[in-house]
Amino acid sequence: MTETITLREVISLEEGNKADIAVIKKMLERFADIINAGDFEGWISIWVDDGIQMFPGAPARIGKEQIRAGMKPAFDQFSLKMIINNEELRVSGNLGFARGNYTEYLTPKAGGETEKYDGKYLTILEKQSDGSWKVARDCFNSNVPET
Amino acid sequence: MTETITLREVISLEEGNKADIAVIKKMLERFADIINAGDFEGWISIWVDDGIQMFPGAPARIGKEQIRAGMKPAFDQFSLKMIINNEELRVSGNLGFARGNYTEYLTPKAGGETEKYDGKYLTILEKQSDGSWKVARDCFNSNVPET
Repeated sequence: MTETITLREVISLEEGNKADIAVIKKMLERFADIINAGDFEGWISIWVDDGIQMFPGAPARIGKEQIRAGMKPAFDQFSLKMIINNEELRVSGNLGFARGNYTEYLTPKAGGETEKYDGKYLTILEKQSDGSWKVARDCFNSNVPET
Repeated sequence: MTETITLREVISLEEGNKADIAVIKKMLERFADIINAGDFEGWISIWVDDGIQMFPGAPARIGKEQIRAGMKPAFDQFSLKMIINNEELRVSGNLGFARGNYTEYLTPKAGGETEKYDGKYLTILEKQSDGSWKVARDCFNSNVPET
């Protein structure tokens, strides 16, 4: 694996309250940083309690406990490197969405080959009462045919 | 294939302007009806011009012409039956989203086995100047592992 892993953020479409957009941009950066640090509790804290994760190949995970059960093993078993190339952010009132592409590298902590995933995501964001934004719905899929 | 194919719509979560929600519900019904009628031009007309379709296994299709090029072959080659079980509709201003599950049956017009797909979707909706709502972004993936 010779590719350099960096967090890039390319936002080409933005619409909505500028202060909210700025907060969301920071949240998206934090989202990738937290994954790259292997910080599962930090990652789960970015979700709303009734969040829904739409992971490919399985029914939707409804609520934080199902998301936790689904994702904790990945954080436990792999070193994760996530590059998020966000392409769009739109906000209307307390509702917003982000859309873009990601590249994720999973390296087994026990040793073994790194696997690379190229995908795209569509993520619904909700403004919280404290002004922060959290992830409410997240749907994603591969940019390449399954092998 | 012995399952009865019907359009069911189960909306359990709704938030936002009630008139907009009602318009979107009708649009979602029409979305399925149009697919089931094999009406490609009707289907493409439900998209905004700069719509983005996030089809699994390929990069995002950006704009109506890419969506047309990607989807026309499916309408040409298959009889489609789509059942949409919408579970959530949320609207804030001119932005909204729908989330749910779908079952799609593809039967080759030239003859052959019907294929069944179980999936989930997250769809961004935009209110148009005439009060109608259109599909702006659509991300979906399988509810079962790829075989």
